[in-house]
Amino acid sequence: MTKTEYNARLLMLVQNYKDVVNAKNEEEACGNGIFTRYKRPVLTADHIPLFWRYDFNNVTNPYLMERQGVNAVFNPGAIELDGQYYLVARVEGNDRKSFFALAKSDSPVDGFKFLDYPILMPETEDPDINVYDMRLTKHEDGWIYGLFCTERKDPEAPEWDKSSAVAKCGIARTRDLIKWERLADLKTRSAQQRNVVLHPEFVEGKYALYTRPQDGFIETGRGGGIGFGLTDSMEEADISKESIIDEREYHTIKELKNGQGPAPIKTDKGWIHIAHGVRNTAAGLRYVLYLFMTDLQRPDELIYAPGGYFLAPQGQERVGDVSNVVFCNGAIARENGDVYIYYASSDTRCHVAKTTVDKLLDYCINTPADPARSYACVKERYKLIEENLKHINKSKNPSLKMTIL
Amino acid sequence: MTKTEYNARLLMLVQNYKDVVNAKNEEEACGNGIFTRYKRPVLTADHIPLFWRYDFNNVTNPYLMERQGVNAVFNPGAIELDGQYYLVARVEGNDRKSFFALAKSDSPVDGFKFLDYPILMPETEDPDINVYDMRLTKHEDGWIYGLFCTERKDPEAPEWDKSSAVAKCGIARTRDLIKWERLADLKTRSAQQRNVVLHPEFVEGKYALYTRPQDGFIETGRGGGIGFGLTDSMEEADISKESIIDEREYHTIKELKNGQGPAPIKTDKGWIHIAHGVRNTAAGLRYVLYLFMTDLQRPDELIYAPGGYFLAPQGQERVGDVSNVVFCNGAIARENGDVYIYYASSDTRCHVAKTTVDKLLDYCINTPADPARSYACVKERYKLIEENLKHINKSKNPSLKMTIL
Repeated sequence: MTKTEYNARLLMLVQNYKDVVNAKNEEEACGNGIFTRYKRPVLTADHIPLFWRYDFNNVTNPYLMERQGVNAVFNPGAIELDGQYYLVARVEGNDRKSFFALAKSDSPVDGFKFLDYPILMPETEDPDINVYDMRLTKHEDGWIYGLFCTERKDPEAPEWDKSSAVAKCGIARTRDLIKWERLADLKTRSAQQRNVVLHPEFVEGKYALYTRPQDGFIETGRGGGIGFGLTDSMEEADISKESIIDEREYHTIKELKNGQGPAPIKTDKGWIHIAHGVRNTAAGLRYVLYLFMTDLQRPDELIYAPGGYFLAPQGQERVGDVSNVVFCNGAIARENGDVYIYYASSDTRCHVAKTTVDKLLDYCINTPADPARSYACVKERYKLIEENLKHINKSKNPSLKMTIL
Repeated sequence: MTKTEYNARLLMLVQNYKDVVNAKNEEEACGNGIFTRYKRPVLTADHIPLFWRYDFNNVTNPYLMERQGVNAVFNPGAIELDGQYYLVARVEGNDRKSFFALAKSDSPVDGFKFLDYPILMPETEDPDINVYDMRLTKHEDGWIYGLFCTERKDPEAPEWDKSSAVAKCGIARTRDLIKWERLADLKTRSAQQRNVVLHPEFVEGKYALYTRPQDGFIETGRGGGIGFGLTDSMEEADISKESIIDEREYHTIKELKNGQGPAPIKTDKGWIHIAHGVRNTAAGLRYVLYLFMTDLQRPDELIYAPGGYFLAPQGQERVGDVSNVVFCNGAIARENGDVYIYYASSDTRCHVAKTTVDKLLDYCINTPADPARSYACVKERYKLIEENLKHINKSKNPSLKMTIL
């Protein structure tokens, strides 16, 4: 490769990178009124700094080849600090190992740039093989906690079984998102744990955690549902009793699995929870987001359960490394009532959807609960249609008249 | 259908076919520097001659309907002979049965046209139900060998089980790619075999084969890994001992299965192997390509194992009959050092990527091995980032400066 070719290639790489990172985002037209999607993802593998991937020494890398590729950037935890928006993304190398990296912007919908280094999350005595899906909680004790999934090979699996693993909840804390103190992994009475999330306030003077007990590594087995438990300390977090606050249910969007998303959002009417629900299909699992609300004083007590999904994969979101998936473990609720929901599609890229606390409350309170069977669903629709037809016939609004063709 | 309508339809079919077959290919912009993708697939179902699919007698086919449809063209073996490029593609009819067909071009990246007839591969006494994924090897004994997978229904499966099958390695040889002599299927001590490939040179005076022993038809079970074995003869090929030269490994891109791609490429630093690695996801299996190198004298001795994947499904490649798959069983390394890698996407179509032996060597030798756990991966990146930041700060190249935003 001549010097001219090398420099032409370098310039192209830089230009492509700048185009991706500096692109302005735009709201999608219309939408369902509950939230607004944005046209571009907020983070992708192309957002990873070039100097994380390329060796820029032309002596040791004369062809300017990628040395440490990044496969995907997804499932970010999210937090607002001092008027800046931060995402702690799951970055997956070409080697399939995930790690965390911090991206920052002064806008909630675009301009996210990674800091110079990814997060070197300290290990416990039992080294993590993979870490991912961090939930950030600004706790009233003053710390910011990051709870994440840590995976290790199942020590009881036979030698030829290269897949069986044990998933646990890893715990770390920080003041600035840069320096992280690793704490002991969460202890519970369940064989495996994923999707564990710290509640932002003390409950009965203790730390409160949302859990997802499961029997096996992928399958929830007899376990499943979103659990809840208390621990005296986060330094040696130990939950002796998990109660299920949101069950898996037959023929719903959460038949196979469900899990808490980010820490719940506090409102004067209760806690708003963003969760994911999973069902099986002939083409694999389908992950959608759904909402529920719990009582302000008793965050383990379900008070509203709007039926069906809140957000499902759409358009380009449908396809990726693990297709037919949306997943959310990060949201930012601002003081002014705006809410930014960061969700990933198909284990490949991160998107944002904008809404407000008021809209989410309206959705949770006024969306009918899942009537659990087809006939009852149609009955529910009859009520809506009858009221609408009466209303439209009485109305003098010409646009409203036009809703009947 | 009037004569005018018939002729209009005929003209449209011909025009579409010509457009597909005569389309010029273009390199994709930029890329990762390791290889260059091309914008168009090199072979698709639309490349199949119209007279293989339509009955052109307007008395017996007055509607000019397709009579024998072709579903997909993928997983080609590849070879250069007398300055011409040949692909022996896996052609799958609408009935799901695969067969082989020879396409030829004087360019490695476009213009491939099928010969007038597909290959009528002779059967053994135990008829093949399906044949596919031929690896072509120009052996130093003077023959061109085609090793492929042959499948038959499992004779031990109960009557109601319509899926269980036995996969074995079929063997044929030719001088001209037109006339094929079928030899006996490979015998090994493993229950099933797929992805068997003949090494182009004698090893210890014997024929050397890469194998992929497995317990079941789809699942490798206790087996798996890329094996290696020797046989005295290809006429009655029999491998009594298989040793594994590249293992499956936990939480890598080859956790579930792996297999040798085409015959390895000879270089002065060792043999370059293109292989596929498979992992499981919630949406089914994900197939990617990876590379490794073995010793020049001892092709069963691993000398370089760059971590992670070399090539993974991207964009349109992600979706097809079996989505999230790239697979390679054909590559052409030219005397001038150019390498053309023919790979199929999602069991549907064939693509080409261009690189050189020098670039592949650079990739194999300088890409860090998979460090096997998340923390170690981040450490590896820290080294690269630190060196880069030092180098960029010292550099006077303005493009390089721009890599830091």
